[in-house]
Amino acid sequence: MGRITRNLAVTRVQVGETIETDTRADTVVVEEPLEIRVSGPTLTTTMRTPGQDIELAHGFLYGEGLIRSAQDVTRARYCAGATGPQGENTYNVLELDLASSVRAPGLENIRLTPTTSACGVCGSTSIEQILTRRETPLTPVRLNPRLVPELPERLRAQQKLFRKTGAVHAAGAFSADGEPLVVREDIGRHNAADKVIGALLLDDALPAENRILVMSSRASFELVQKAVMAGFGALVAVSAPSSLAIELARSSGLALAGFTRSGRFNLYAGELEH
Amino acid sequence: MGRITRNLAVTRVQVGETIETDTRADTVVVEEPLEIRVSGPTLTTTMRTPGQDIELAHGFLYGEGLIRSAQDVTRARYCAGATGPQGENTYNVLELDLASSVRAPGLENIRLTPTTSACGVCGSTSIEQILTRRETPLTPVRLNPRLVPELPERLRAQQKLFRKTGAVHAAGAFSADGEPLVVREDIGRHNAADKVIGALLLDDALPAENRILVMSSRASFELVQKAVMAGFGALVAVSAPSSLAIELARSSGLALAGFTRSGRFNLYAGELEH
Repeated sequence: MGRITRNLAVTRVQVGETIETDTRADTVVVEEPLEIRVSGPTLTTTMRTPGQDIELAHGFLYGEGLIRSAQDVTRARYCAGATGPQGENTYNVLELDLASSVRAPGLENIRLTPTTSACGVCGSTSIEQILTRRETPLTPVRLNPRLVPELPERLRAQQKLFRKTGAVHAAGAFSADGEPLVVREDIGRHNAADKVIGALLLDDALPAENRILVMSSRASFELVQKAVMAGFGALVAVSAPSSLAIELARSSGLALAGFTRSGRFNLYAGELEH
Repeated sequence: MGRITRNLAVTRVQVGETIETDTRADTVVVEEPLEIRVSGPTLTTTMRTPGQDIELAHGFLYGEGLIRSAQDVTRARYCAGATGPQGENTYNVLELDLASSVRAPGLENIRLTPTTSACGVCGSTSIEQILTRRETPLTPVRLNPRLVPELPERLRAQQKLFRKTGAVHAAGAFSADGEPLVVREDIGRHNAADKVIGALLLDDALPAENRILVMSSRASFELVQKAVMAGFGALVAVSAPSSLAIELARSSGLALAGFTRSGRFNLYAGELEH
C-alpha cells in the first residue's frame, strides 16, 4: 500500500426519488504529521501528504529565511528510532543539521510575529519582516495575458494525485513562457509550495528569477511570502487573494493574478506584457 | 472602512480575440494576524479575518482541550498598548487569563505532536491524543440523506462575506433537522470552525450534541479534531476528507460526509437515517 493514498470503504449516496447507496473501496489522500527538527529541538509540525519530505523541509526553512542554500543543511534524515504502533518506522520525523555558519533558529524565531511585550502586531509589520529578510530585490515577470488563463490547466495536467483522489492542492514552478519545471502535490497548499521551493533549492535553481509560481488554491499571505522569499517573479492562483497577500505582492514587486479561469483572470499586482 | 473587507484597485482581464482590461475598485477579504496570549506568553498566532476574535480564541482553546467552559476564561481583552504604524490599536493581540483551576498551558502542550526524544509521531498517535482528551463519548447523528446535500446551500445562503468577496470559508452549526444555528466566515477554514465553536461555548451550548458541523471546505484531520472535541454528532464537508480525518471520525463515532453536492454525497463514517 502506497503511503500517499489509501483505499477505504466509502458509501456513495445518490439522492433522487429514491436513495441509492453503493459502498466500495475508494482512494483517499493520506494526511500524516511531519515533525521537522533542527539541530535537536522541534521547529514545526505540519500535517502533510507523505513524500518529498526533504524538499518540504528545505523549502520551509528557505521560506522562513533560515537557510540560503542547500549547503546550509549539512544532514537531513528520518529519526532512526522511529516506532509506530507496529514498531515500523513512521518516516514522520525529519532531523536536520545546519552548517555552523547558520544561526541556529529557536522556535521563537520562526513565527511571523515574534513574542514581545509590545502588542502592535499587524499586517504591515508582517510585510516589513518579509521585505527585510529578502536579500535581493525581485525581478517582476510581466505576465502574458494569453498565457495566464492556461496555467491552471497546465498545472492540473501534471496532478497525478488529484486525478486519483480529487482532493489535493498543487504548486508548480513554471518558466515565464509557461513550461512546467517542478510540480508538487500535497493536502496542504503551503506544503505543496514548500516542496516546489525545496526542489528548486536542492537543484540550485533559487532565486526563482523569471519563474511563475502557479497554485491550485487561493493566494494567502503565507503563499505570497513563500513566493517572495524564493524570488519568483509572479504568482498565479486559481482562487482569490487576501488583502494582505495583495499588499505584500505590491510592496515586493511580485506580479499577482487570482480568480484565474478559462479566458479571464484578475491582476492584483504587477503588469501585463504588451 | 470596515476591517473585514477592503477595497483595492484590481484589473479584470478578459482574454478573447483581443485582450480587454478594466481596472476598478474591488472588495477583497482582509487577512490579519491574531496573536493569542494566555496568562502572559503567546500561545499561537493565526492569520484570520478580523471579527469574532473572542469567539475564535475560546473555540481554539476548547478544541485543544485547554478549557472546558466559558468560565475557565476569566478575562479576554485586546492588548491595551497596541500601536500600529499610525499609532492606532491594531486589535490583533488578544490577552486571555484563565481561572486558577485551569492548568496554564505551555507552548509545548498545544501541539498535536509533543516534543519528545521519541520519534514515533504518526497519525494513530494523533488520534489517540484526541480521543484521550475527550471526556464524554460522542452521540453520533444519523444523517438524513435528503438533508445532507442541502446543507452546503443552506450554509452558503448565510455567507454575507462570500457574496462580497468570493473568497472566504464558512463553518456552520446546524440542528439535526437542518436549521442553521451559528454561521461564521473566515479566510481560514479552521478559524471559521473555531469561531462557531467559541460562539457555542459562550452560549453554554457545548457539547454540540445532536448538531451537525457544516464546512464549505475539505475535511482535514484538524477540522475533524475540532468537531470531535466540541461534541458534534456529524461533520458535512463540501470537499474531500483526508485518510486521517476519516480514521479519526470512525474512531470517535463522528458521522462524516464529504464531496457533498446537489443530489449526492459520500459517507465516510457513521450511518444514514432510515
